[in-house]
Amino acid sequence: MPEFLKVATPNQVFEALAGFSRVAFETVPLDAALRRVCSADIASPEDLPPLPRSTMDGYAVRAAETFGASDSIPTFLDLAGAIAMGKITDISLDRNRAMAIPTGGFLPMGADAVVMVEYTNPTGEGAIEVTRPVTVGENVLGKAEDVAQGEVVIPAGKRLLPQDIGLLAGLGITQVAVYRRPKAAVISTGDEIVPITTAPPPGQIRDINTHSIAALVENSGGETLIFNIVPDDPALLRAALEKALASADIVALSGGSSVGERDHMVHVVSALPGAVVHAHGIAISPGKPTLIASVNGKPVFGLPGHPVSALVVAQVFLAPFIRYLGGEELKRGPAGARVRAVLAGSVRSAQGREEYVRVKIEETRGQISARPVFGKSGMLSTLVKADGFVVVPIHAEGIPTGETVDVILF
Amino acid sequence: MPEFLKVATPNQVFEALAGFSRVAFETVPLDAALRRVCSADIASPEDLPPLPRSTMDGYAVRAAETFGASDSIPTFLDLAGAIAMGKITDISLDRNRAMAIPTGGFLPMGADAVVMVEYTNPTGEGAIEVTRPVTVGENVLGKAEDVAQGEVVIPAGKRLLPQDIGLLAGLGITQVAVYRRPKAAVISTGDEIVPITTAPPPGQIRDINTHSIAALVENSGGETLIFNIVPDDPALLRAALEKALASADIVALSGGSSVGERDHMVHVVSALPGAVVHAHGIAISPGKPTLIASVNGKPVFGLPGHPVSALVVAQVFLAPFIRYLGGEELKRGPAGARVRAVLAGSVRSAQGREEYVRVKIEETRGQISARPVFGKSGMLSTLVKADGFVVVPIHAEGIPTGETVDVILF
Repeated sequence: MPEFLKVATPNQVFEALAGFSRVAFETVPLDAALRRVCSADIASPEDLPPLPRSTMDGYAVRAAETFGASDSIPTFLDLAGAIAMGKITDISLDRNRAMAIPTGGFLPMGADAVVMVEYTNPTGEGAIEVTRPVTVGENVLGKAEDVAQGEVVIPAGKRLLPQDIGLLAGLGITQVAVYRRPKAAVISTGDEIVPITTAPPPGQIRDINTHSIAALVENSGGETLIFNIVPDDPALLRAALEKALASADIVALSGGSSVGERDHMVHVVSALPGAVVHAHGIAISPGKPTLIASVNGKPVFGLPGHPVSALVVAQVFLAPFIRYLGGEELKRGPAGARVRAVLAGSVRSAQGREEYVRVKIEETRGQISARPVFGKSGMLSTLVKADGFVVVPIHAEGIPTGETVDVILF
Repeated sequence: MPEFLKVATPNQVFEALAGFSRVAFETVPLDAALRRVCSADIASPEDLPPLPRSTMDGYAVRAAETFGASDSIPTFLDLAGAIAMGKITDISLDRNRAMAIPTGGFLPMGADAVVMVEYTNPTGEGAIEVTRPVTVGENVLGKAEDVAQGEVVIPAGKRLLPQDIGLLAGLGITQVAVYRRPKAAVISTGDEIVPITTAPPPGQIRDINTHSIAALVENSGGETLIFNIVPDDPALLRAALEKALASADIVALSGGSSVGERDHMVHVVSALPGAVVHAHGIAISPGKPTLIASVNGKPVFGLPGHPVSALVVAQVFLAPFIRYLGGEELKRGPAGARVRAVLAGSVRSAQGREEYVRVKIEETRGQISARPVFGKSGMLSTLVKADGFVVVPIHAEGIPTGETVDVILF
């Protein structure tokens, strides 16, 4: 019986994946930079704000003159005018004077604080009374207090969020250097596979993996290059692989990665010049029949043909790896958010493999439970019905009901 | 002093938002349906699998004939041939016979289980010995066991994940009915605002909100329609608003939503025919000066002009509302994943308003802490440096250090 050439643990696979090089950079307009990953630290070209600005509607004052002000003994200040939005006043604030200022207005010279309008009363004669003291800098955003010129505002490797886009807009940064989207060639193989636009003849099945793996690549920030289905023929597989390696940053094959008669993948890949097999067989379930290789430094994933196994392997290894190629740190997958939950049904696992159990999240009276989804491992519907995975560690035989677990959400 | 017309609590705002109608439907190809929201239940047109399939490499058998098989007393079975991938055999399994079958192969008539190849030995004379018994259905995915014809596989309102795309591919569903992407008109207002492509003259500032709010809308599954900056002029504001209402599903204005001299928004909006003000002033911080209105049933958000307040209000209300318009359930925002953490610094809040405190997540020896980000509330950089929000409830005065809190991640 043929065997897997190089069975690896998940940790060994992640060590191998960390050795690949990331993709190159490109420059995109700011409004196209959402969720892209910065390829270099971005330093601020200027101070924000450039001059002190009010954070409240009120009166610009000299803080010292308000010391001791109260409802019963207010401080009287003469009005020297009003600050207009969008203008810098050339009035400098003299002793015992105040200027009306709107939120966001730039302070006049001489002022060092703003009294909120709520703590003032107009006296009707071009003057106000202040009924509460302010300290220096109160209700003011000082020059460069938000961002100082030269300060790194966005570090390399950060995936940009709306607030990052906002800050870059505020600094006048209209173009951003980001990692290219990694381009993955997606190839389904197998004599029994037909395109989803075709009604499958008896014994044949529709091509699930092209669509689910492409969606997963796109969901991880990558682009896809979809190939036609390749039959179980080493020469055709080799030709497709060579074309894919020439045009993509990573090749994601599925099917033929096991050790059966039709499973040519490991032989075809390892026969290519510059090929290295990092793992053939990974100690996880589902998903053991997986090939992780490289050809002249370019990564090749040989996913299992079974759609559930292919998707689990892709979620655990391919999704974080696409994010890594695209500039993020390599994190152990799956990539989703974690939620603590109480396991609502025991799960078993064979020792020596990491098991990915599909669970549904249930919430009753503030208690979050994770209920294993009923059904055989090979059922795609169990992945669709589940909210996430619970991982049974490689050396455990299972997890008992009632244990607190981390659920990795889809 | 002018006042807010209709101060509302966050709960009251969400009640008002739940009264709006969702957008219409459209049909998209399956490969464009990732992260789109299904507008109707999707029922399976067929059984999956259509006939029993093997989940392992091995031998198709009649389970009853393996009862009692062991290494010492194996069951001998004659080979009736091999199942080819992609073919349905016309051989029917007689007594005491087995057929070789690959993972995914369709079982021959008469067989009801598969023995894994590991638990068989070839005898060299067209026969095998079976060294472990199997039960009926073992290592087999039965007809319709994954999905039965007519079963709802994807409920309306679900945002499609890679596994959903995979299952739909497997069922031959190549077109999917989804909600349109809600289209938001994004309009910044204010005399002091200049486009980010312009160097701001003294006293003026760059337009942050157009870019951050547009990014937030896109991040929530919406599309944007970007308007030019509107000065503080009621007639110009009204004209922009009418144009926006005619072309978008929702209007997201910013600036002028407070109660100062320049704050025309509430008057302009409420003077439109068919206008209803749902909230003018929301009991949250930052973000009080917010207007939530509708004009002939179409939602209008008047966000604060201050970029931090605008973004916080947008994260709390606009992001979940865009998701709701686009077909999802209305959930209290912000929309991110929740993480439990120990608060690493006390936070204060005024009673009577819900406070959004920016925190950074720190992890030391498995303990997750949430450290409030240092800096004034009006600093945009604090939002950029933070990993998420901790919410101080409306009737609390703060949260002490060491308390366990939920962090809502960006």
